[in-house]
Amino acid sequence: MRERAKDPERHARRMDAKQKIMQERIARAQKEQGVLLVLTGPGKGKSSSGFGMVARALGHGMKVGIVQFIKGAFSTGEEAFFRDLPNVDYHVMGQGYTWDTKNREQDVEAANAAWDVAAAMLKDNSYGLILLDELNIALKYDYIDLDRVLDDLQGRPEMQHVVITGRSAPAELVDLADTVTEMGVVKHAFKDQGIKAQKGVEL
Amino acid sequence: MRERAKDPERHARRMDAKQKIMQERIARAQKEQGVLLVLTGPGKGKSSSGFGMVARALGHGMKVGIVQFIKGAFSTGEEAFFRDLPNVDYHVMGQGYTWDTKNREQDVEAANAAWDVAAAMLKDNSYGLILLDELNIALKYDYIDLDRVLDDLQGRPEMQHVVITGRSAPAELVDLADTVTEMGVVKHAFKDQGIKAQKGVEL
Repeated sequence: MRERAKDPERHARRMDAKQKIMQERIARAQKEQGVLLVLTGPGKGKSSSGFGMVARALGHGMKVGIVQFIKGAFSTGEEAFFRDLPNVDYHVMGQGYTWDTKNREQDVEAANAAWDVAAAMLKDNSYGLILLDELNIALKYDYIDLDRVLDDLQGRPEMQHVVITGRSAPAELVDLADTVTEMGVVKHAFKDQGIKAQKGVEL
Repeated sequence: MRERAKDPERHARRMDAKQKIMQERIARAQKEQGVLLVLTGPGKGKSSSGFGMVARALGHGMKVGIVQFIKGAFSTGEEAFFRDLPNVDYHVMGQGYTWDTKNREQDVEAANAAWDVAAAMLKDNSYGLILLDELNIALKYDYIDLDRVLDDLQGRPEMQHVVITGRSAPAELVDLADTVTEMGVVKHAFKDQGIKAQKGVEL
């Protein structure tokens, strides 16, 4: 396999075929519209990916809205980094992790207050991209009415991009989404190998 | 299922059990060390996730090194956003997409020059986190010697975090990594639904 990969003619032919496929795809893909992207599954990197897309959107000069539906007891690096940037509106739901509160009513109230913030962003076409971080958790526990969420997402401005993260995305949300990535665990330092959760990567 | 999820006692018990598991895991996880994280698979969000971790590390005051092993013809939003930040050293490999160059020798040369930059970062403990974006592609095509890469990664400062992205991560790299996420495609707007690749999310 290695030797074949090094054959320059074969390599050029393969790259040529690949280039053709890419060009055809680009030609076919002509719908200009805001994309609804869902990042789900048990693997590491869902929220990070959402925040990377925030950075990319900011790099393109867009205004970005961020609503975090689950917040740790400690302030996160993302919050420290993004909160005070121009072009960023950053909202964090007013409770700790669900498994620290143990109070369903309080969680429901906090989640719905956070959704009110998100819903207002989803009506405002000045936001080019909205990140709804860990929304899937709030949906999984039925903290927020799924139909309300789906309606607000569908009613948003045509060019607005939305990124939703969290494991266990509901099937109805997956159906509505344009792109869905399922992140699977192959190995996990924190769970499998006893490596301490750390600042910087917080695994 | 929905009804059971709404039973407050059951909910409190479940959250209680979850909290215990989390506490046990945190108690067990006491190795303080830099983590090698690999984000691979065909799904959307690998590079974004790496850039999100860059933002998180910067939020914690770390110095970050970024080397991009594949560069598109156009400047990316991430580059525009991160390149000129203090605490960021940003290096982009000096060629277009491999399927645009069709010249194996040129690709090998460019990839190795980029690895030289990465290798120097991997010897410098002032970098808290290093992102090697799309390195897996360069390894897949044998542009860079895998043993050299593995040696440099293993020889890095103990507390340095490294994030490597790209589909088709080699098995030897997966073995060396602490955490590996495989990103699977559930749906893809660009491929499946003819939605145009756009600034902001670039799907």
